[in-house]
Amino acid sequence: MSISSIRLYVPSPLSTGAEIALGEAQSHYLANVMRATAGEELRVFDGVSGEWRANVTKISKKAVLLTALTQTRPQAPEPDAWLCFALLKRAKTDMVVEKATELGVSVIQPIITARTNADHVNLDRLRAIAIEAAEQCERLAVPEIRPPLQLARLMADWPAERRLFIADERRTGSLLGNGAGQVALMTGPEGGFTETELEAIGRIPQVTRVSLGARILRAETAAIAGLALLLAAQP
Amino acid sequence: MSISSIRLYVPSPLSTGAEIALGEAQSHYLANVMRATAGEELRVFDGVSGEWRANVTKISKKAVLLTALTQTRPQAPEPDAWLCFALLKRAKTDMVVEKATELGVSVIQPIITARTNADHVNLDRLRAIAIEAAEQCERLAVPEIRPPLQLARLMADWPAERRLFIADERRTGSLLGNGAGQVALMTGPEGGFTETELEAIGRIPQVTRVSLGARILRAETAAIAGLALLLAAQP
Repeated sequence: MSISSIRLYVPSPLSTGAEIALGEAQSHYLANVMRATAGEELRVFDGVSGEWRANVTKISKKAVLLTALTQTRPQAPEPDAWLCFALLKRAKTDMVVEKATELGVSVIQPIITARTNADHVNLDRLRAIAIEAAEQCERLAVPEIRPPLQLARLMADWPAERRLFIADERRTGSLLGNGAGQVALMTGPEGGFTETELEAIGRIPQVTRVSLGARILRAETAAIAGLALLLAAQP
Repeated sequence: MSISSIRLYVPSPLSTGAEIALGEAQSHYLANVMRATAGEELRVFDGVSGEWRANVTKISKKAVLLTALTQTRPQAPEPDAWLCFALLKRAKTDMVVEKATELGVSVIQPIITARTNADHVNLDRLRAIAIEAAEQCERLAVPEIRPPLQLARLMADWPAERRLFIADERRTGSLLGNGAGQVALMTGPEGGFTETELEAIGRIPQVTRVSLGARILRAETAAIAGLALLLAAQP
């Protein structure tokens, strides 16, 4: 099997002739799983320089060296959209990170709320999930995964210019067409935000409470469906 | 722990005083897992008679009998929306069935396409997933899960009055606001529909090819995001 359909996120800045020393995991994948050989071509992207063809120039079991050849796509603007979601159990958190990456978010911010039953995340694991999703869905950037933050802390420092949409079953406002500029979607835990939390959130002038439709969604579905609605019309 | 927050789908037609003999799995859950006792109340729905309070009238390890008391919600109209999705591997098929139920579909039709890598489903398992999702998300009906069908067979018998929306990365039409009446969303396998399949689908006059946004979504994400867009404005 050829490696030509492979697309890797690489941290190095890319330019013609740039050498890319892959880390251990990517080297192992190319050398041992895909059995790449010197001279074979694949695609790489670094989140800032667009997407490039690169070829394998040196290969050993633990270290693969690539050389960037020509740019295949220039870096393009992506939505400036945050997802702030109340931390869920591991499998659901993984799903949210993967799907949010596919749907185009720029920042993923786990939050801790009164009814959140989880407080620990393995950030390296979540970053690996986001990278793999970005590689597979042809994105040119990987969202930033931030460490979990208490809801109150996040709200205290909320950026003045960023609009925040909160999923609220009792409201009728819509996310549609609201994805331009600096935006964020916030979703609660199973059981929802407390009244006290909703009041505190409501004191931030950038907040709009919106409906995700007539049905009650599980927490992870609310995040995914909400992002689909918020970002559907965004380039 | 009280069982008052439990909501069960029961097949029997519900009315005041109706006796409901639960099946083995639900009986086991109430008797042994939740340790329900006679007289305790919960909620039940049957897909046609709305939602009812019911109490436990007889309990043994393998057979629990409920009696319906009063209606808590009348049956309400739900979207008449089908999801036709190219069958995926088990975990992804499970996810699609669960999320499609939450998002409000009435029929789930797995399809077999040229690039579909799966051809078997355990319908009982998928029905159990749909029932659990409906119970948890306060729906009053459970979607019908149909056996897998070849794409060509489905298209040959496509109902004249049902509009069909196909996710197509190259189009710009939108699903938004299209969820009223008899509708269906169709999503392809990893790798997409073949050109031959798209041509055959395109010959059906009820078909509209629509975009799900600028990003490329995995097959299961396309189904979930597409339903979020199609049904967002539906009661």
